[in-house]
Formats: sequence, structure tokens, C-alpha cells
Amino acid sequence: MTAHHLDLLSHFTTVRNRSVALVAPLSAEDCGAQSMPDASPAKWHLAHTTWFFETFVLEAHEPGFVPFQPAFRVLFNSYYNGVGAKHPRPQRGLLTRPPLTEVLAYRANVDARMAALLPVVAHNAALCALIELGLQHEQQHQELLVTDVKHLLSCNPLWPAYLPTAVVLPPAAPALHWQPFEGGLTDIGYAGEGFAFDNESPRHRVYLHPYALASRLVTYAEYAAFVDGGGYQNPALWLAEGWDWRAAQALEHPLYWQRLEGGWHSFTLTGLQPLEGARPVVHLSYYEADAYARWMSARLPTEAEWEHAARQSLEKPAFSQAPHLPGDDFSDADAVQMVQWFGAAWQWTQSSYAPYPGFRVADGAVGEYNGKFMVNQYVLRGSSVATPLGHERISYRNFFPATARWQFTGLRLARDL
Amino acid sequence: MTAHHLDLLSHFTTVRNRSVALVAPLSAEDCGAQSMPDASPAKWHLAHTTWFFETFVLEAHEPGFVPFQPAFRVLFNSYYNGVGAKHPRPQRGLLTRPPLTEVLAYRANVDARMAALLPVVAHNAALCALIELGLQHEQQHQELLVTDVKHLLSCNPLWPAYLPTAVVLPPAAPALHWQPFEGGLTDIGYAGEGFAFDNESPRHRVYLHPYALASRLVTYAEYAAFVDGGGYQNPALWLAEGWDWRAAQALEHPLYWQRLEGGWHSFTLTGLQPLEGARPVVHLSYYEADAYARWMSARLPTEAEWEHAARQSLEKPAFSQAPHLPGDDFSDADAVQMVQWFGAAWQWTQSSYAPYPGFRVADGAVGEYNGKFMVNQYVLRGSSVATPLGHERISYRNFFPATARWQFTGLRLARDL
Amino acid sequence: MTAHHLDLLSHFTTVRNRSVALVAPLSAEDCGAQSMPDASPAKWHLAHTTWFFETFVLEAHEPGFVPFQPAFRVLFNSYYNGVGAKHPRPQRGLLTRPPLTEVLAYRANVDARMAALLPVVAHNAALCALIELGLQHEQQHQELLVTDVKHLLSCNPLWPAYLPTAVVLPPAAPALHWQPFEGGLTDIGYAGEGFAFDNESPRHRVYLHPYALASRLVTYAEYAAFVDGGGYQNPALWLAEGWDWRAAQALEHPLYWQRLEGGWHSFTLTGLQPLEGARPVVHLSYYEADAYARWMSARLPTEAEWEHAARQSLEKPAFSQAPHLPGDDFSDADAVQMVQWFGAAWQWTQSSYAPYPGFRVADGAVGEYNGKFMVNQYVLRGSSVATPLGHERISYRNFFPATARWQFTGLRLARDL
Amino acid sequence: MTAHHLDLLSHFTTVRNRSVALVAPLSAEDCGAQSMPDASPAKWHLAHTTWFFETFVLEAHEPGFVPFQPAFRVLFNSYYNGVGAKHPRPQRGLLTRPPLTEVLAYRANVDARMAALLPVVAHNAALCALIELGLQHEQQHQELLVTDVKHLLSCNPLWPAYLPTAVVLPPAAPALHWQPFEGGLTDIGYAGEGFAFDNESPRHRVYLHPYALASRLVTYAEYAAFVDGGGYQNPALWLAEGWDWRAAQALEHPLYWQRLEGGWHSFTLTGLQPLEGARPVVHLSYYEADAYARWMSARLPTEAEWEHAARQSLEKPAFSQAPHLPGDDFSDADAVQMVQWFGAAWQWTQSSYAPYPGFRVADGAVGEYNGKFMVNQYVLRGSSVATPLGHERISYRNFFPATARWQFTGLRLARDL
Repeated sequence: MTAHHLDLLSHFTTVRNRSVALVAPLSAEDCGAQSMPDASPAKWHLAHTTWFFETFVLEAHEPGFVPFQPAFRVLFNSYYNGVGAKHPRPQRGLLTRPPLTEVLAYRANVDARMAALLPVVAHNAALCALIELGLQHEQQHQELLVTDVKHLLSCNPLWPAYLPTAVVLPPAAPALHWQPFEGGLTDIGYAGEGFAFDNESPRHRVYLHPYALASRLVTYAEYAAFVDGGGYQNPALWLAEGWDWRAAQALEHPLYWQRLEGGWHSFTLTGLQPLEGARPVVHLSYYEADAYARWMSARLPTEAEWEHAARQSLEKPAFSQAPHLPGDDFSDADAVQMVQWFGAAWQWTQSSYAPYPGFRVADGAVGEYNGKFMVNQYVLRGSSVATPLGHERISYRNFFPATARWQFTGLRLARDL
Repeated sequence: MTAHHLDLLSHFTTVRNRSVALVAPLSAEDCGAQSMPDASPAKWHLAHTTWFFETFVLEAHEPGFVPFQPAFRVLFNSYYNGVGAKHPRPQRGLLTRPPLTEVLAYRANVDARMAALLPVVAHNAALCALIELGLQHEQQHQELLVTDVKHLLSCNPLWPAYLPTAVVLPPAAPALHWQPFEGGLTDIGYAGEGFAFDNESPRHRVYLHPYALASRLVTYAEYAAFVDGGGYQNPALWLAEGWDWRAAQALEHPLYWQRLEGGWHSFTLTGLQPLEGARPVVHLSYYEADAYARWMSARLPTEAEWEHAARQSLEKPAFSQAPHLPGDDFSDADAVQMVQWFGAAWQWTQSSYAPYPGFRVADGAVGEYNGKFMVNQYVLRGSSVATPLGHERISYRNFFPATARWQFTGLRLARDL
Repeated sequence: MTAHHLDLLSHFTTVRNRSVALVAPLSAEDCGAQSMPDASPAKWHLAHTTWFFETFVLEAHEPGFVPFQPAFRVLFNSYYNGVGAKHPRPQRGLLTRPPLTEVLAYRANVDARMAALLPVVAHNAALCALIELGLQHEQQHQELLVTDVKHLLSCNPLWPAYLPTAVVLPPAAPALHWQPFEGGLTDIGYAGEGFAFDNESPRHRVYLHPYALASRLVTYAEYAAFVDGGGYQNPALWLAEGWDWRAAQALEHPLYWQRLEGGWHSFTLTGLQPLEGARPVVHLSYYEADAYARWMSARLPTEAEWEHAARQSLEKPAFSQAPHLPGDDFSDADAVQMVQWFGAAWQWTQSSYAPYPGFRVADGAVGEYNGKFMVNQYVLRGSSVATPLGHERISYRNFFPATARWQFTGLRLARDL
Repeated sequence: MTAHHLDLLSHFTTVRNRSVALVAPLSAEDCGAQSMPDASPAKWHLAHTTWFFETFVLEAHEPGFVPFQPAFRVLFNSYYNGVGAKHPRPQRGLLTRPPLTEVLAYRANVDARMAALLPVVAHNAALCALIELGLQHEQQHQELLVTDVKHLLSCNPLWPAYLPTAVVLPPAAPALHWQPFEGGLTDIGYAGEGFAFDNESPRHRVYLHPYALASRLVTYAEYAAFVDGGGYQNPALWLAEGWDWRAAQALEHPLYWQRLEGGWHSFTLTGLQPLEGARPVVHLSYYEADAYARWMSARLPTEAEWEHAARQSLEKPAFSQAPHLPGDDFSDADAVQMVQWFGAAWQWTQSSYAPYPGFRVADGAVGEYNGKFMVNQYVLRGSSVATPLGHERISYRNFFPATARWQFTGLRLARDL
């Protein structure tokens, strides 16, 4: 048994256990409900991430493979058309069977079989890469699980808390300053030896015009000034499609905000709380982020600008990760002083999600992973309070439609120079 | 303590306990999900029926009233605008809090407080009538709970059973014959001393033309002949609105039917089962019932015809109740021999749900009970396998929109003479 | 050539010419547009009523029949499934070809062929009845043409007038008093020798409880008091479905009303005009009519009550018809003094549109005329300012869904005695 | 009067007259109808392009300005929020008033006033630029007018022709070969002295990787092979969103195709015609273009690749324009031999419509022209058979949502090298 295998097993165990830990504060009822078609029940996330290993790894490589439950192949498929039928997404919340206990048993079963398989396949690099993909996939679902649970709980007028309240007073946000970048020819995309998603490759050359980026993210206090200053009533600040979207739903503020006595509040992972002005604002759609930037006579960065600037900024040894999941946002004084590239909020870019030059879709069902979503979505860079530690990467490309608000999505301003 | 009070307490306990018994086969997850806006989670039924007693009885009459949980006043209000705000109906399935255990505690708490109150108020006839209304209301929700659970489980491709399979071979249905009625002047509506809903009054005179009714309900086998004979492809058999409804959803058979190898199957309370041809067909919309009747050169009865015929037929001492809830439909050989006025299926009538001459809505929120639904619904008579024993009445007026299919709704044919 | 034939030819010519006269104030553009799926272009009405004669009369009886344009068979079919395909209703406004001129040529062609056929078939009673049905059908479309044109013009912010303004000051409405009726056994439905639609038969016996009817219709001034008195904000006054309908569209007043400087205005056939308080209010949905009645502690009459009362009231020789189409409503002082059974507004009844006892659908496509609409519609009695003179009948049953507002629909109050 | 002014007046007259010429084959009825919310009536295009000159030029510069009709300011505003209210877009087809004759009078009136104004303002460069923008705007609407009329006529089962049939036999398409381009640093965007839209600026540097472009556009015959080869049944070929879009509408072929006896037909500007296999395929959505490219193991070009390649290819003097509007597509043998950069079909690129580096929105209402649409649209390059001669430009950026099919949209394949 090699060190490599031990590493993979350890990694496997750590990631898999974290998923189960995320539902510890939840009841079986909490884990079963689905608050909107875009979200999935926590139970479904637990099962689907397990289905990945059973379908793509065990089915092909386990001697004498017998599925834990044949029906799960359809129930917990998500979008892999190549794998066959799938349960309709908007009806995931109706799957009260299998119960949570059975899904946890499914996880334990697959974990044990995977643990048995790993020594046997440790030298199969392609398979190890596939297992790594499964773990990265699971980490993505861990973030979705948190955002989906938050959305579900926000639909309950009892305002239940997912996490206990952190008793940390947020410091004031540091002053924002503009950091200039010269641009020119630069390379973006993943280049190392470790794992990266297919959409981060190939590393390739781009030409950047001079630009400046804000030294930190936009805060709740700053965004509240936009809201209170009539930002949601002025069509000149909005993309036409964004204005129509806003008007059709009569939106007057970001998701989860409520104006109560005492001022703006927001529903957070610790329940309904007064807006903490110094924290990075999250739960913005692309339209809202873009409108705010226009109000500030600024714009959203491109993803190439973001990556170029992050690379230059993070080469310093002082870079460290923000703590995760204590409140809704990081609550540690150090974190607010950070450059906030990671761990604070996903940052909308103006870049449409598109293939890099030379991008090739992998063969087989796994090839459905990223490429087929490359239309009408926008790239987000960085990572959020809900992103598992170690999952973030400078070349990481998250993506969502312009309307998405239930993710931890904020923004960093950019300007032409 | 009077006998009357003891009767009321005993009745109260019996009805309330039956609701809890109905969820015994279900998990907390099963009880929380909502499969469509028309249906409610079982947990919601349990809480809402309790809310009725706390809001309309305890709040007004209990000394030192303190609500079990103030937020429940909004969460478990259904449609009583007079009582204030209500949680949006389509989002009842998102209320993972309070958990089922807390709703059961809410029930126990209110039951204990009601048990304490009953001796004190036994001589308050108006209040006792209100409590009786609450119990009848709960019995209505017991039937809805069963139909809603059935619908939820039908959305799960695992086809879970709510009840264990009854191992009774269904006998052949008896031959259908036509029973003539002379008609003329007759009185319909409730006239006795016991409980009846406001919509059954006043008892009043109507004039009936001669008519005939079928001696029993239409069976699955008979309806399958309509399906297999092209009934769903022939617009001449359908009301125009029914045809458009059918076409828009591409419906080719009643709800819950599936054509598998081996022929028609139906999802039932005991899971997916081959169609039992001799049982009364259920889960028909008004449109489907009407189309079948037209195919048979017959029609649906009016509610006055139904009541008139039922009164004449049921004056015999041999009348007895059908057994309840063993399978999806009654499974006892005796039952099939019965006239099937009650306990087999709600029977669509051609009568639009409208006020009887002289009908008056009661004052206050309780007045919202029935009157405000008197438009675009059709009256169903009889009772079904899911109706609690003793809840049925010859003058009982159930009502649903013409599109409703998830109730146990069938039909009895009628003809002009 | 018999007198009977001459009468039929004269009747044919009169009715057919009136349709063409109705579009005299309109351009070809006006005649082609369709403002909503419920409405049809005027050009379509002109063609469809002609299609009826070509399809049901000429095709079967004209020697050497050749269709004017074979494609019209599909284009101008409305809902007769028995006749074959039909153009999708919501797309009638896209038929810019054939142009209006060709549709008028189609009318002239069919009229000439019908004039040639009539002497030959004068003794064929069944065919003459079918022709009479075609003319009555055309008169129904004449009313729809006017209401559809009114709706179309109301969508134009230029507020074009269909008719020149009548310069008649409306008198005050007479005081409303309640006229009692004893009820008892009575016969309703058509019984004479002349034409009546199938849905008015068979004449049959009903039993009526004592009731009272208002001596005249509800006026604009009276309804404005309901609007201004918060009628559209009080759910206790509304049927539940009506309240939801109102809330979903945020309705605060009847169709065509606008609150301008100077008070309530209404879009009429003569353009935008101040509300004339003494006229009967029109353009109410069933829900609005019902809510107003509840506010007045009254109710809508049943159709049997209406017919019974109208028969008793109209046996006096003084009964005469209201003038037609001068403004939106009748504008003659005499008319306001009338009992307003006819010529003022269709009057909602609480009766769902259902078959009379013994009703039978005719064979063939013509049998699709009425019976297949007998669900989820409500009967209106009387006739309106847009009803062709002579088309009205005491036994006449008009019907529309509870949501319909673009017809000239008002109400007369009723009460139990 | 300067030569410059004479040029502008001549240009003005030419462009304005062409709009009127485009409706010559149409009736007033044809010009008034609107077949879908995305399309506008021809009459509306005629009026709106006139409104532009009256609102943005005459209102500010004409001495003693009096609007032709004040109501037109709202009626014929399109999306300029800065100008105030606008008539709801989906209801443009209901504006039967003003009639076409009045809109033509409006055009003549504004044209005469503009002709009087032009000499006075000839030296006002900013105003001349605005007038030029108005003419370019009108040319854009000329193309929309043609595509909207085509869509309207396609909804009519009489299949009316807009243009007389061209009797030209299409030659076979030339063989497709791949033309390689080295890429590297290059500049794209407009750089000359003449007119260009704001979205074509600033000219800026980009880095291109080596690529190849197909020597001509994809033809009907090639696309039919994709359709007949199961392209619309294989999800692996489609973007996920494209597949869902296709499935929801059960699409099996491009817009306007019909499979009749004798094979594929297409509705064209000359009516329903057999598919002409050698012509460039048009009326594809982005999804369909992308799926075809995947099927061919190719991809869509980026807009920078397209512009870079077009510049290199068109520097030869032999470049000439394709003829316009003879049939649906060019029908001249020479044209098929051309490189088809312009005049054949708009060519989807994989580039999301986004601002160029340094892009600034103009002040005032005119600033709403392009920038506010820069989200969820894709850039098309080239020009089509419906584009006015002289309107095309190498740097021209047309844009539509991925779902749009009613424009003359085709594709040219690209590959990485």
C-alpha cells in the first residue's frame, strides 16, 4: 500500500465525512425538503455524491459489483444524460423514501466498498483521477447543500438557525483603494500537477488592457447605501434584462433582506440578524452586482483580470485562508483585513462562461461535467464562506445564470485605466 | 359531569386519536412533504386541525389562555381570511420546522386543555356545536390526509405502500340494473337533530322529473373498456373544456393508471397493483366521469336525484356501512354486493355547488367554512373508502373542481325516464 | 315561391346585411386585430358566420357545390371538432390574408348562392330550421363582434370611438324597489312554435321558493359606491375563488373604468366618457356581481326565478324593447324607466349552465352547438344593448365563465322571502 | 448648401424611401399584425423609425417644434426608458389606429421637416452624427421588418408570398475547405472615419490562438443531413440548456421547415418552397448552430477570430457584395462562389455580447442604444440577405439571445489548430 494510496484514502474519508457532518444540525425533515427547482434536498446531495462513486467507479471496477439499490441509479442521477433516465429535478423533495437513514447507510456501504477498492486501484492513474473528480464534485455539492439549506430555512417564518450565533463584533471594513494592473500578455488557466476541472484548461495566453481592481469586496453597508439611495428604482443603472427581471418580481433589495424596526436585517445561517455592514455583501444576482458597479462608475472585472490580479497579489507568503462557516460570512477580524480573494464571497465577473481556446470535452458521461453548461452563465471567481477549505483555486471557474441569488455571490469592483 | 359531556369527550378523543393513527405507517419525512399545491403535508393536517380548536375554542374560552406557539396562528391557518395572515399554501411542504414531534406535542397539549375545558362548557350548546364542527372538520382532513399521502407516494418511483396488501380476491361485480324513480315534489337537505354542515340546509322542496339510477357504481373493468375503446381519443364524448384539459396534458387514462406488461395497473394505498376490475373506479375528474356517462348514453345524476334515491333505498334496515381503508377500495365481498351509496367512492353529480334556497352564511370566521366556495365546483355525494366511519350522511355535500382527480371520486350512472 | 320562403329570404338578408353594417365604422386594420384569445377579429366573425352557411347548408344541398376557397374550411371553423381541423383560436388575429375585401366577397358569394337555394328548399323544414339556426348563430356573433371591437379599441391609448357620441343626458335612475314573487310549481324553458336554441328545452317543471327581485338593474352610481366604499378590499364580500382572481390581477374596479381628474370614467363605444351614474352597470364578472350582491345583503337570482318573474312582468302590453347601440348603453329616457328585462344588460344568475331535464344533444356537428359547454359557466338572462333586436327571448340562456368581463354583463338583485 | 449636406440629404432620402418600398407588397392589414412579442408590426417599424427623428432631432432643433401627434411619443417609443412611458411591446399589434395611411403621412411630414432642417444644421457635426445614427437605426429596423413579416406570413396556412418567386436554379455549393489562420496579437473593433455603432469601439488588442475557419457557410443540404441523421435526438450534441429548450418545444428541425411529400420544404419570402440544398442554412438558434458544429467535430468561431479572418480575406479587390432580397437567400451563381462573409446569413459566434475594453455608454437616451443589452446575448457577424446594402461592416456586432430563430441566422464552422 503506497503513500499515494494512503493519501487518497485519507482524502476520500475526510471529504466524505464532511458531507455527513454538514447535516448534523438538521433533522430528517430538514434534509428532505426542496425549496425551489434550483435547489436540492440535503438528502439528495448526500445520495447523489455517493451515486457518483457507485456508478462511475464501483460499477466499472468492483469485482462482482451489485448495486446497493438498483432504483438509486435513476433516483440520484442528476443531469448525466449519458447514464440514462433521471428523476425530474423539481420533484426531488417528494422522495421521502428512501429515508435519510437509508441514504446514510448507502453512504457507509459505498464508503466501505471504496475503501476496499482503493488499494487495488492505487496505481491506476486514470481511475485515481476519476475518484479525485468525485471528491471535488462532492465538495461542490457541499457548498450547494449549505446554500440550499439556507434557502429552505429562509422560507420558514420561524427563521430557524442552521448554526449557533457567533458572538463576534464585526470590525469596520478597511478603506477601499484601487490597485492598478498594467496588463499586457499573460497566461491564465490551470498549469500545475494537482487536480483542476477540465474547464480551467488549457492554460492559454490572453492580452489584458490596463485596469484597476478594488482592494476588497463591496460590503453590506456600501450596498445598503445603493438600496437606500434609490438604486432599485433607476432603470439607467441596470441592464435592460436585469431591469425587467427586477420589475417582474418587484425586487427592492437583495435576497434575504428584510426591513424591520431597527433597520435592515438579513436571514443568515445563524437566523435573522441585523445587517453587519462591514461584511462583504452576498446573495446578489449578476444584474444587481452590475447595477451597483454602474452606480459606482465602475464595472465588474473580467475573469482574466481577476485571475491575473489574484496571481500577482497572492504570491506573498502572508496569504492565508479565511475561516469557514462560522456565521454566514467570515467573522474573524483578520479575515476582514485580508484581500478577500477567497473564503468571503464568490465574485461575479463580466465574463460569460465559455470554453478556453483548445478546450476539449472528455469522453463518456464524465464529459458532461462542465462543457455542456457553457451558455448563458457568468463566471464567478474566488470562493465563499461555504466553500470547503482546499477546494478553492486561483484558476477555479464557478458559474451561474445571471438571475442566481441563493449562492454566496458578491462582487469586487474594477475599472479601466 | 353529564352524559352529554362524556359523549362529547369520548367523541373528541376518538376522532383526535384517529388522526394520529393515520400517520402511524409514515415517517417524519413522509409527513412533511407536499406533492402539489392542492395537497398538504400530513403534518400540516395534524397541526391545522389542532389550530382550529386552539383558535376557535381555547382562545375564546380557556381561562388564562396562552398559545402553545404564537407563530402557529399564521403557520396553520388555512383559508380563514377573518383570522388574519396565513402561510402560502404551495409552501406548506417547506415547513420542516416545527418537526413532527413538536406537532404531536402540540396535539397532546391542546387535547389535554380541551379535556379540561369540556366539563366547564358542557352546557354551552353553541360552543359544543363549534367543537362538533371542529371534529367534523378534522374528519374531513383525515380523508384529505389519506388522499394527499397517496398522491405523494405515487410520485416516488419506488412505489411505496401506505398499507399492507390485503389478500382478498375481489369478486366479480354484480350485474348493473337500472332502478326507476318517479320523482315529483320531494324535500332534500338535512332535517335531523344531529350535526350537519351549513351547506346541507335549509331542507327544502324540489321537483324531480322521472329518472333511473344504476344499481351500483361504475367499475374499473367497465372504465377500462372505455379507455381501451378509444374514449380518450374521441372529442364527441367530452365537454369542450374537458377535452381541452385532457389534450393539454395528453391524458390517456385516469390518475394512477399505468399500462405495464400484464395489463393495466394502478398505484394504490398498498402500492402498485393490477387493476381489480370488480371494484368501483376512482380518481376520475368530473370531465372523465361525464365522458364515460356520455359513452354509455347515460348522464350523471343531479344531487337532488341522488339524495332522493338514496333516501328511498336506505330506509331498509339492511343498510350497513362498507368497511374502511383496507386497501384502496373496499375489499370485502359483502361490500361489492351493497348498493354502494357509501364507503366505496365519492360520486360526481352534475350539480354545481350552490347555496340551497334560504342558505345563510354564519357570522365570523367560521362562516368562511363552506359558502365562499360556492362557484365552479361540483357536488359529490356518498362517501369513500377514506371517509371516517360515521362521517357520511345522506344529505352530505362534498365538492371539488371538475379537474380534481386525487380524491376517491367515481360515478354512478343516471338516465331520464 | 311561398310567403314562408319570402319571409326566410327577407330574414336572411336582414340579418346578413346587419353584420356588414356593423363593420362600417371600422377600417380593414380594425377588423383584423385580435385583442385577446377570448375575442376574435371582426373579419373572422364575418367569415365564420358565412362558413356556417357554406359548410352546413350549401355543401350538402347546393347542386354542383364548389367551395369559394377550400382553405376557408379550416381557417373559419371555430370549435366544431366534427367538421375537422381548425385554426388555433389565439392566432386568428394573424390571418391578414384573406383580406377584408375578400371576406366581403365571400359573404356576397355565399349570400347569392343562398338566395338561389332558398326557393328550392323552402319546403324542407329541417333545412329551413338549420338556416334559421345559422341566422341566430350570426346574431350571436354580431353581439360578440361589438364586444370584441370594444375590447380591441380599449387597448389603444388613443381611445378611439366606435360610434359617434350620443348627446343625451341620462336621467336619474328610478328608485329601486323589491318586487315579491310567491314561487311554487312553475314551468320554465321554451314552449312556442318559433325558433329557440336546444339548451332552452325541454320546457319543464321546477319548484320555486318565495323570492323578491329588484325592480331594475344595479346602476353605475350604485356600483361606484361599492368600489369607493372598499368593496374590492374586503375578502368577506367575495367568493374565495373570486378574491384570488381579483388579487392575482390587483383589480380595483370593473373593466374599462379609469379614475381620472373629475372622477370615474369608462371606455365606451363612443370613447372615454365620464361614468353615467344612472345607467345599468356592465362589464362585471360573476365574482364582481356576486360580491356586490353580498354587500347589499342580497344575492343573484337563479335563472328559474328570473324567467318566472320575467314572464309575470312582461305579460303587460306596455313591454317594449330598449333602443340599441346608440351609446354603450341605452340613452333614452323611456328606457331607464323600463323594467330592463331586455336591451340593457345581460344579467348574471347564480345558476350554473347545465342541461335541462330531458335535454338531448342533436346529432352531427350542429349538436356541438350548446351542450358541450355545460360546465363551469354561469347563465345570464335578458339581453344587452349589443343584442340584435328580436334575438332576445324570455327563455334565452346566455352563458359565460365567471371571469368574463368584456361582455355587457350586469346584474339584478334578488332576495329570499 | 454644402456637398456634405447634399450627401446627407441624399442618404437620408434613400434610406427613408427604402422603408416605404419594403411595405409595397403588403396590405394595411399585413402591416398591422404582430405574430409574437419578439416581432413588431411593419407599421410600427415605419412609425418608430420616424419617431426617432422627431424625438431626438426635430424636438431639440426645429424652430417652433410641434409634434405631429403628441400621443405618438408614447405609442412609438420602443425601449428608451429615458424618454418616458412606452406602449407595451406585446400589444403593438393592437394599434389599429393610427391607420397605415396616417403613419405614412407621419413619415412624409417628418421627412419634409427634416429636409428643411438639414441645410441649417449641416455644420453641427454632433447632430449630423445623430442623424446618421437614426438612419443606421432605420436600416436595422428594415431588416427586422422583413424578418417580422416573414414570421407573420408563416403563421398563415395560406402560405402567402412576400416576394415573387425568383426562377433561378441554385448551383451546387462549392466544396468546403478549412482555411488556417496563425493568430497572435491583432486589433479588432472599428477604426475608420465613417459611422460605426458604439459597441464596435474602442478598437483594441486581442491575442488569438491558431485556428481554422470553413471557407463557406453551412448549407441547407448539410444541415438536413444532421436533422435526418438524428441530430435532434442525441443530447450529447447539445448544450444542456439547448437540449431542454428543444425538448420543451419538441423541436425536430429548424424554424420554417416542413416535411411534405417530396421531402423537406421551407417557408420563404417567396412562399413555401422545396429546400434548396446549396444555399446557406438560416433560421437557426445558437443552440442548433452549436449542436451542428459539435456533430461536425468543430465549433463556432469567436467574434475576434471572425473579424480577424474577414479582414485578411477581404483585403482583396475582388470582394463584392451579395445581391439582396431576391428570394429568401441570394440566388445568384456568383454569390454562391463568394466567401459569404456578407449578404448570405448572420453567423453565430461563440462570443457572448460584452463591452469592449474601455467601452463607455453615451450620455442621454441615445446611450440606451447598445450597452444595456450586453448580457445573455450572443454576437453574430456578417450580414444577411435582408441587410440593407452598405449597412454591413467587418466590425459590425449583431446580437440576439441564444433562442432566436426568426432572423436570418446561420453559421460558419471553426476549429482549433
